[in-house]
Amino acid sequence: MMKVLRLLSSSRNQFSTRGALSMHAHTHSTSFSTASKSFSVKAGTSADYVHAPFHIYKGRAALSFSPVLPTFTKLESGGLIVGRRGVVMLRFTPAIGERKYDWEKRQVFALSATEVGSLISLGPNDSCEFFHDPSMQSSNAGQVRKSLSIKSHADGSGYMVSLTVVNNLLKTKENFIVPVTAAEFAVMKTACSFALPHIMGWDRLMSNMPTGVGVGRQQSKVVPQLLDEWDR
Amino acid sequence: MMKVLRLLSSSRNQFSTRGALSMHAHTHSTSFSTASKSFSVKAGTSADYVHAPFHIYKGRAALSFSPVLPTFTKLESGGLIVGRRGVVMLRFTPAIGERKYDWEKRQVFALSATEVGSLISLGPNDSCEFFHDPSMQSSNAGQVRKSLSIKSHADGSGYMVSLTVVNNLLKTKENFIVPVTAAEFAVMKTACSFALPHIMGWDRLMSNMPTGVGVGRQQSKVVPQLLDEWDR
Amino acid sequence: MMKVLRLLSSSRNQFSTRGALSMHAHTHSTSFSTASKSFSVKAGTSADYVHAPFHIYKGRAALSFSPVLPTFTKLESGGLIVGRRGVVMLRFTPAIGERKYDWEKRQVFALSATEVGSLISLGPNDSCEFFHDPSMQSSNAGQVRKSLSIKSHADGSGYMVSLTVVNNLLKTKENFIVPVTAAEFAVMKTACSFALPHIMGWDRLMSNMPTGVGVGRQQSKVVPQLLDEWDR
Amino acid sequence: MMKVLRLLSSSRNQFSTRGALSMHAHTHSTSFSTASKSFSVKAGTSADYVHAPFHIYKGRAALSFSPVLPTFTKLESGGLIVGRRGVVMLRFTPAIGERKYDWEKRQVFALSATEVGSLISLGPNDSCEFFHDPSMQSSNAGQVRKSLSIKSHADGSGYMVSLTVVNNLLKTKENFIVPVTAAEFAVMKTACSFALPHIMGWDRLMSNMPTGVGVGRQQSKVVPQLLDEWDR
Repeated sequence: MMKVLRLLSSSRNQFSTRGALSMHAHTHSTSFSTASKSFSVKAGTSADYVHAPFHIYKGRAALSFSPVLPTFTKLESGGLIVGRRGVVMLRFTPAIGERKYDWEKRQVFALSATEVGSLISLGPNDSCEFFHDPSMQSSNAGQVRKSLSIKSHADGSGYMVSLTVVNNLLKTKENFIVPVTAAEFAVMKTACSFALPHIMGWDRLMSNMPTGVGVGRQQSKVVPQLLDEWDR
Repeated sequence: MMKVLRLLSSSRNQFSTRGALSMHAHTHSTSFSTASKSFSVKAGTSADYVHAPFHIYKGRAALSFSPVLPTFTKLESGGLIVGRRGVVMLRFTPAIGERKYDWEKRQVFALSATEVGSLISLGPNDSCEFFHDPSMQSSNAGQVRKSLSIKSHADGSGYMVSLTVVNNLLKTKENFIVPVTAAEFAVMKTACSFALPHIMGWDRLMSNMPTGVGVGRQQSKVVPQLLDEWDR
Repeated sequence: MMKVLRLLSSSRNQFSTRGALSMHAHTHSTSFSTASKSFSVKAGTSADYVHAPFHIYKGRAALSFSPVLPTFTKLESGGLIVGRRGVVMLRFTPAIGERKYDWEKRQVFALSATEVGSLISLGPNDSCEFFHDPSMQSSNAGQVRKSLSIKSHADGSGYMVSLTVVNNLLKTKENFIVPVTAAEFAVMKTACSFALPHIMGWDRLMSNMPTGVGVGRQQSKVVPQLLDEWDR
Repeated sequence: MMKVLRLLSSSRNQFSTRGALSMHAHTHSTSFSTASKSFSVKAGTSADYVHAPFHIYKGRAALSFSPVLPTFTKLESGGLIVGRRGVVMLRFTPAIGERKYDWEKRQVFALSATEVGSLISLGPNDSCEFFHDPSMQSSNAGQVRKSLSIKSHADGSGYMVSLTVVNNLLKTKENFIVPVTAAEFAVMKTACSFALPHIMGWDRLMSNMPTGVGVGRQQSKVVPQLLDEWDR
């Protein structure tokens, strides 16, 4: 069965800075390949994050992916609310020789939680396609168009993952094709299933609470969370 | 195959305050849409919780869901026992215009662990239905009746999720219908599978223990947990 | 397809104290039902554990289950090694009236990691059966015989879970039968899948490490774990 | 359907020390069987790790497996990047009598993330095979050849897991065969699915962040992670 999902990302103002992001992302990826080079991080920001992209190197292009966690905003009450949503960031880089990739020419595609849900529920014979407009809700809306396609091989042995970026402003059209084996796709699905609750911020709902019940802390009333909601 | 599960929530006195809860929940949801506005939290309660509902906005109504963790009660021995059970809270809000929803009119439906089990085991062609009486075991028992229905589309492309609330006291009947795509339902299933051990309190069973084996802590006897049960 | 797995638990000396355990377990369960009563814990033991069993109450008996984590032994090197293996403990309690259960007469059955593996891989039409001898490797070997059977309903709507305990010493034979719906079994499978790495001790392998990379801790060489194994 | 995956591990210089590793691994395994004996750990290394291998003892050989976490390298910016990739380490030990195994003769096989993906996506009738050259990219390349085969039984009741090590330098050929039941393989799959995000280092991406939002820590801007990437 060939099931093609066509979703037009509405992405309420959350991916509008993607142009800038992909430029900066290049800086990061350079560092991935030459570990001695340090990141160019803005002074004053917390630089203590972890980089653990998973790379799939193929003949014509490389695909890497890693989660980007949501940010939280503090409420006057002291609670936290999800601000910017998390994503799973896909990065495509063209090959320029044997085992050589041009990180300057990479393009990114940020999967939302729902798109991750689509990916992890793909059967061995299913396919899906997503469309993003990085300039949505700006004056450049419609000028850059990205489409990601995940198409299963006929024999169920894997998927063809491809990204097309059409940029009417620069008059360019880029295409990246990465064949992904069933085993590699299993890694993507398992890792994305693991990441999904985290990009939704649900791991915080959990990890925020154990403080009250830690060994050695004695409290008469443990875990007051949501008492105001449940107990009236 | 159309499999309809009909479960009458017995919910031993744990959902009896739902009327009050849905009123309070409205206050919260207002804040969700206008982040600059702070929560109205009771003074003295712990306000350091995290809000990370997942929203599915559709034409006639919006559906959001998030886990509510269990509470624990301290025993004289120093141990902890689950008090109020956790739930996955579904919230339905009617649309009152394009991309506008009336948070004042929202209704909630709290899925128990078993109902979550039902949801996460739904196949692409399965359906299920749950009935709740928020006033069970009170003098108003039977006066308010909520039913949640999750019905698969014939082509397996998703589900129709609907909530009906009949309130004999107020002489009202409300109905919320939210079509959920297969991708969105995959998010619900994955997130609810992640949340299930947490609403059961099983994450505490785990997280309560590492203290004894932390790096830098030297103990002759590590992890005495349950020694009284196993070692006699 | 009806697939019956018959496993004779060899359980190298790890379940030999089960007779004593089931006696003590009764004390615990009394506390579960009457929360005002405290546990009888041996003085000097760490009592700061968490009780979060999941209960399935049915007409003839109740079934509850919860994980019991492994214990660790400290090596001279400072490392930790799994001592007693963790289990998922099933507890069966006979009904003695409407919604009343006789906790004094409960019987337990401790699922090993492999038996948990068997349970979580059961299809809707599969069945399995386990046999335990709590007195294995003692002089009473063979005198008490426990068998747990999980048998799917013909229509795939759930399972019949039953425990038989034959005690030749006391000349008794007890039988517990608990029908488990598909939704309840989904809770068992999801919770047991979550618990499995924990009863194997694999969560410790993970949680033992983040200390070295915590925000605010600066180290030139992060995560020295297993350097002795990999770096020579 | 018999699907045989043949993957030649390219393993960019990350498994080149495997010869040394398997020698050292013997020291570890000796300790597993005689807990009173301590590990021989290099002075100065952090010895506070946890050993929790899962053992499958069979007539001709034993198979154990446990995750080995990745190492991280600190960047000048303060961030962390994955250095050596994590693996799931399989260990095969030949039997030399009833319930006796010769830990001196054990051989290891380190599953990469992609190979783990292959294992966890194996259906009940699937098979796979992996080839490793521990001396790849050294002058001894091609001299030692390891192949791991996981072959399903015809009746779906389990798998035959076998490792062959051909060493042209020592003129030896070793073969280990361990029949694995469906229940034991379910443990492997569940444990490896749990371990996969950890050997990829993705648990760090998560666990690195909660510090900023811990209860009791008040910050005006919570979770600055990746602000430099998203906010410009």
